[in-house]
Amino acid sequence: MSDLSNIIQELNVDFDKYKENLLKEYFDFLRIPSISSEAAYAGDVIKCCNWVVDFLKKAGMDVEVWQTSGHPVVYASWMKAGKDQPTLLFYGHYDVQPVDPLNLWTSPPFEPRLEGNEVYARGAQDNKGQCFYTIAAIRHLLMKKGKLPVNIKLCIEGEEECGSAGLPAVLREKKEKLKADHLFVVDMGLHDKETPEVTLGVRGIVCFTVELCGSSGDMHSGMVGGVVYNPNRALAELLASLYDKEGRIQVPGFYDDVLELSAEKKSAINFNFNEQGFYSMFKAKTTGGERTKYPPMQRASIRPTLEINGINGGYSGDGFKTVIPAKAIAKLSCRLVPNQSSEKIGKLLEEYLKKHVADGVEIKVQLHPGQGNPLVADPTSKTVKAAAKVYEEIFKKPCLNSLSGGSIPIIPDLANASGAEVVLIGYGLADDNIHAPNEHFGLDRLKKGFATIGGIIHCLAK
Amino acid sequence: MSDLSNIIQELNVDFDKYKENLLKEYFDFLRIPSISSEAAYAGDVIKCCNWVVDFLKKAGMDVEVWQTSGHPVVYASWMKAGKDQPTLLFYGHYDVQPVDPLNLWTSPPFEPRLEGNEVYARGAQDNKGQCFYTIAAIRHLLMKKGKLPVNIKLCIEGEEECGSAGLPAVLREKKEKLKADHLFVVDMGLHDKETPEVTLGVRGIVCFTVELCGSSGDMHSGMVGGVVYNPNRALAELLASLYDKEGRIQVPGFYDDVLELSAEKKSAINFNFNEQGFYSMFKAKTTGGERTKYPPMQRASIRPTLEINGINGGYSGDGFKTVIPAKAIAKLSCRLVPNQSSEKIGKLLEEYLKKHVADGVEIKVQLHPGQGNPLVADPTSKTVKAAAKVYEEIFKKPCLNSLSGGSIPIIPDLANASGAEVVLIGYGLADDNIHAPNEHFGLDRLKKGFATIGGIIHCLAK
Repeated sequence: MSDLSNIIQELNVDFDKYKENLLKEYFDFLRIPSISSEAAYAGDVIKCCNWVVDFLKKAGMDVEVWQTSGHPVVYASWMKAGKDQPTLLFYGHYDVQPVDPLNLWTSPPFEPRLEGNEVYARGAQDNKGQCFYTIAAIRHLLMKKGKLPVNIKLCIEGEEECGSAGLPAVLREKKEKLKADHLFVVDMGLHDKETPEVTLGVRGIVCFTVELCGSSGDMHSGMVGGVVYNPNRALAELLASLYDKEGRIQVPGFYDDVLELSAEKKSAINFNFNEQGFYSMFKAKTTGGERTKYPPMQRASIRPTLEINGINGGYSGDGFKTVIPAKAIAKLSCRLVPNQSSEKIGKLLEEYLKKHVADGVEIKVQLHPGQGNPLVADPTSKTVKAAAKVYEEIFKKPCLNSLSGGSIPIIPDLANASGAEVVLIGYGLADDNIHAPNEHFGLDRLKKGFATIGGIIHCLAK
Repeated sequence: MSDLSNIIQELNVDFDKYKENLLKEYFDFLRIPSISSEAAYAGDVIKCCNWVVDFLKKAGMDVEVWQTSGHPVVYASWMKAGKDQPTLLFYGHYDVQPVDPLNLWTSPPFEPRLEGNEVYARGAQDNKGQCFYTIAAIRHLLMKKGKLPVNIKLCIEGEEECGSAGLPAVLREKKEKLKADHLFVVDMGLHDKETPEVTLGVRGIVCFTVELCGSSGDMHSGMVGGVVYNPNRALAELLASLYDKEGRIQVPGFYDDVLELSAEKKSAINFNFNEQGFYSMFKAKTTGGERTKYPPMQRASIRPTLEINGINGGYSGDGFKTVIPAKAIAKLSCRLVPNQSSEKIGKLLEEYLKKHVADGVEIKVQLHPGQGNPLVADPTSKTVKAAAKVYEEIFKKPCLNSLSGGSIPIIPDLANASGAEVVLIGYGLADDNIHAPNEHFGLDRLKKGFATIGGIIHCLAK
């Protein structure tokens, strides 16, 4: 049996031994409603930050809290492995998504519930679950051996779910402290529970709020219906005009900078997609996007998208209210691929929307902070290889390379600041309901994550 | 001075004399949150019904409460004028519209506030204000003289704002009790405060809820953006397809039954519209509807419309949530003109929506109860002439005929059941904010309404 195999077996045994206490701590972490995008939860975000700080201090790490323009970042380090040993930087976040529609949750989102093997709570996976096994594994090794074979740095932020707007400035300022050899972004997942996989890239993102205004107040649809230009109609027309029938985005210049992947690079990436499994899981068909030109997984990773994340205007509750609303709102986001720039796409979309809005309706376009560029890592780096080796040991199967359709806007900035090679890892699954009601994460995956972090630390020690 | 002039002067004096008590009662009426479309207020609707019953009993009328499948109707009669005298039937409603967005109200909607001449509250005008001056004038005449020169019936319903769904069955059942010579629908207004006007017709209405479903739950726009057909996009495309660039509705057959008004009839109707005044009042332009073919007031009265009263899908609150929503909803309503049938238009629209929805998205179309056909009254009837005469006496100006763009679905049914000639009257103004935040009504108009009802009773006595 190899050293790595022994290490992983030992970590599995230890996880089971300390399981009760680990679960207690994990649940404590989940109970804090650290919703970073809603001002009402600002106090809870701080409470959650402090929870992480306490955890890492007790683990024996040097901890700093870095203030940002938004929510603070927890920075921790353990640098006693010496200059000959490499430095590993782990990234995670302690903030979570909002919870509505609350009525669709089976149990309260901040009262974690264990059902069978699954823990249900907002953040159970994204990212508290994955963050927890990371810090728990590092603490475990420090406690058990009194030391680590490599130097460790942690960057655990509090505003990933609202775009990490304040972090770039801090990363530039703290560049020296973040220097590392290997960067592990522990906020990813597997396409299927049985197959090991590391992620080489994320898409960029840029988000907008579009507000159309037709009058100073809501009006009566009997009195002025057919007279004023209903902002709901103007919004529907504006949004519909963004796509052609093939799902191709109609904003001029949108695709200009897209770098098509070479056939060789494409072949190194896993684009498998189980359409039938997807349907039985989500009751969703794959009829969206550029469906005539690209298969689903390519549309979700190497192609840019524009999605309407929210629309609202007038009355849509019980019964009926015959208004012409004063305003209608849409929330839009674009996912970007190499070589698109979030700044350029932001400008193009803003120009398009302002140019095409109906006569008689005023438009405001607000670009959200926290836009991010796309990133694709080098598949031959030591970082990627170490992660793949550990996954292969745990699953006893070859590890696949994939690209994520999601965005972690801060990752390109963090890779630059640290100067490290990057890989994105994690144990999320597509049906974890992240960003949705009834988010959940499995204890088996918590355990695998715990072993993975320990295995990676072992593999990268010289 | 004519008899009518004397009567009106007397009523004006009496209104001022009893003003304090009248206002107290009016405010009590307004304080009851009788929102008929929201189940949570069902108890308040009953409370409001009882308030009306008590008021009319104390006035000396015979009162009955007619149960419907929804909220009850108050029926009251005073039939002691004898068979030689005509019977006048007055219609109003004691229920009100919902109040959201609540944050746009300057003061709580069910705590009436007098500012200068205006009373602010939900229902201040529509229809509690107008209903109140009607019942207050009848009570006043009964109290003062101990009798009336004509027979009076009142039909005051409790579900006008949610479509009067239960009333048609009751009207058929109680047909004999409702028999009358003249029907006055006191739920209308004037185009301008200084100009007397009676309304000869209302548009029909048919309302829908459209729900699009793309998956069993909300999904992540990074993971499945570009893969699934976003219900928000499908909704925008479906709604946008309902109109061409000229604002003409694209549902096949929509205009087939529309009876164009003859030039002669058109000339008897007041279609004046002060575009500048409208803009300064509402900050709204007249760029909606069939703008290239019909002037604004015609679009709002003799032309059918289709308006999007509400849209909702995904997250549109503070910050950002990168979801692909499972569902998107729209609330639509059509206003209809003679000779359109609400039933037929309902079917046409439902067929169109189901046929044109995007592949991969499921659609449900729910037709709301309470659809209604259009109505246009005979301008030469005694009923219309009596109302016009009283208005001319009060304003000392010729009275105009107009058509309303709004709908009172029950009016055609009530006209049929009673066998009466109908006219629609009232003192609403376009900037009363009915169906919107900060609804209000003027005390000067409450007083005019009080005199109008008394004047009409006088005019129709033989």
